[in-house]
Amino acid sequence: MDLRLVFLGTAGAVPTVDRGPSGLLIIRGGERILVDCGEGTQRQLMRSVGLGRIGTVLLTHLHGDHYLGLPGLFKTLSLQGREETLRLFGPPGLEEMLYVAQRMFGRVQFPVDVAEVNGGVAWQGSGYALRTIRTEHGTPSLAWALEEEWRPGRFHPEKAIALGVEPGPHFRLLQMGHSVVLDSGAVVEPEQVMDEPRPGRKIVISGDTRPTGSLVNLARGASVLVHDATFTEVEKARAVETRHSTAREAAETAAAAGVGLLVLTHVSSRHGWRELTSEARALFPRSVLPSDLDHVVVPFPEKGLPERVRAADVEHPRAREDWPEAAKPV
Amino acid sequence: MDLRLVFLGTAGAVPTVDRGPSGLLIIRGGERILVDCGEGTQRQLMRSVGLGRIGTVLLTHLHGDHYLGLPGLFKTLSLQGREETLRLFGPPGLEEMLYVAQRMFGRVQFPVDVAEVNGGVAWQGSGYALRTIRTEHGTPSLAWALEEEWRPGRFHPEKAIALGVEPGPHFRLLQMGHSVVLDSGAVVEPEQVMDEPRPGRKIVISGDTRPTGSLVNLARGASVLVHDATFTEVEKARAVETRHSTAREAAETAAAAGVGLLVLTHVSSRHGWRELTSEARALFPRSVLPSDLDHVVVPFPEKGLPERVRAADVEHPRAREDWPEAAKPV
Repeated sequence: MDLRLVFLGTAGAVPTVDRGPSGLLIIRGGERILVDCGEGTQRQLMRSVGLGRIGTVLLTHLHGDHYLGLPGLFKTLSLQGREETLRLFGPPGLEEMLYVAQRMFGRVQFPVDVAEVNGGVAWQGSGYALRTIRTEHGTPSLAWALEEEWRPGRFHPEKAIALGVEPGPHFRLLQMGHSVVLDSGAVVEPEQVMDEPRPGRKIVISGDTRPTGSLVNLARGASVLVHDATFTEVEKARAVETRHSTAREAAETAAAAGVGLLVLTHVSSRHGWRELTSEARALFPRSVLPSDLDHVVVPFPEKGLPERVRAADVEHPRAREDWPEAAKPV
Repeated sequence: MDLRLVFLGTAGAVPTVDRGPSGLLIIRGGERILVDCGEGTQRQLMRSVGLGRIGTVLLTHLHGDHYLGLPGLFKTLSLQGREETLRLFGPPGLEEMLYVAQRMFGRVQFPVDVAEVNGGVAWQGSGYALRTIRTEHGTPSLAWALEEEWRPGRFHPEKAIALGVEPGPHFRLLQMGHSVVLDSGAVVEPEQVMDEPRPGRKIVISGDTRPTGSLVNLARGASVLVHDATFTEVEKARAVETRHSTAREAAETAAAAGVGLLVLTHVSSRHGWRELTSEARALFPRSVLPSDLDHVVVPFPEKGLPERVRAADVEHPRAREDWPEAAKPV
């Protein structure tokens, strides 16, 4: 199943010509989960993979650069005729923020299920869970993880056949973890014909935060860790003061957690791409800083490591093809 | 004195890949006036003429696609260390909207002078006035005009010399409209050495509205009329229902008012550039539909007609050169 991240905005609190404020889309098969929604996120979606099919929005915290795109996105989805429920999770304060925001942008025409969360599994999807922990940003703030369920081990049909199992319904029962009784009376157990179960993939998004031990725990063994890297070590004091992380600190967390790829984000325009990545790579070589609209593809562990794909190399339908004819924008 | 418009966003309520929500910058000499501020306006400014020197913001009405960029813009200006007062004018309801918005984006570090207006001259600048009238959009809504003062007529030094006036202070007095008494006792009046006063330029912005007679009056003789052209005549019923104008209706107002250039804006993605401009040009040939970041330059009437300049042809410093070193963004 395809699992990928689309980096919609990778700037810090102040956007630049090249980088928009925070926004990150997780695409898993036919599902889409938006993590944070800074100003302009709806157009970044239009420019890349389209607005459609977002089922869940996760907010890491309630600073404007992480949610000021929400009113416009909701309004556009509403004008497009969206009817499906949208799930929205964020830290305590979310409901009050929405109450205030709704006075600004009016009612939306589709249901929004809102939940303030503080840790634990916020949502159990089909084949994955969305888990959250508290972080340290001087305001209620969360890191998020998408954790896939374990997959059954690989099935070996040749072993089953050797044990006398006929291809067909018995194969299926074994793959689902059930024993089968053959006509001969012999019993074949799944363990005899299948490898060990394999872990799923895990994606962890730090949000804005100082390094924390609980984030290392959450990120342990993750395929991808997307981490606040607002500053370099030259501005360490400022990182401490503003409750952000340096690129080196992000790399320390990535190394301690043993992740497959570290993705730096929320970068200040004080620092160039080269400074940030070389600082992180000195400690954790598999570090990248994406440009806006770059993707990161996340294969199953046995298929390879996660990789950044530049926006220009992504093959994807443009936004406009996503508009249903009946719901063209006003 | 340079007078130009920069089209920051020309989409209707729903932005597209190519067009952002409403935003328009008037540059007059060293002054900058922002008219409406949809989501993403700050980045459009960064991409074109920079964020600096905006003294005044005018809102036409309080629909989200016309002001949802304000919180982010204010926050960025605040982080940049802006200290100068910003003047903000809009229709009744503005103060309540700001009160609500401020709960979302927090305090800004520079003073904002807010005034709800309903018609008349909202601001008397140096050499120009900002005038507003009520329009018809189903919510309190305003059109705005920047009206330059009349300029003195052209001074003819050769006529003054022929009348015995010596170049120097007497020239200056005559140019300022005062009589001068020569050593001979003869009196020279300004009218003897100067042409008739000449009108200044006028720019009118309709905001979102149905056509109204008062808008024709406001736009009479304007150099440029920027007008709502959300739909074509094919969607006239929808224009009436949503209190917008068609391209033809915009052209009717432009023709009735005798303006120098009609600029169509707030266009729905239902309609292409060609449909909208050809509908307007059938009635009013000097009609254009700019792309985002295009400029319209507005010479004094005796120097020529206003012209659209494509973004690619504009020579202008990029945004980053505008950042003072001490106030680089976080």
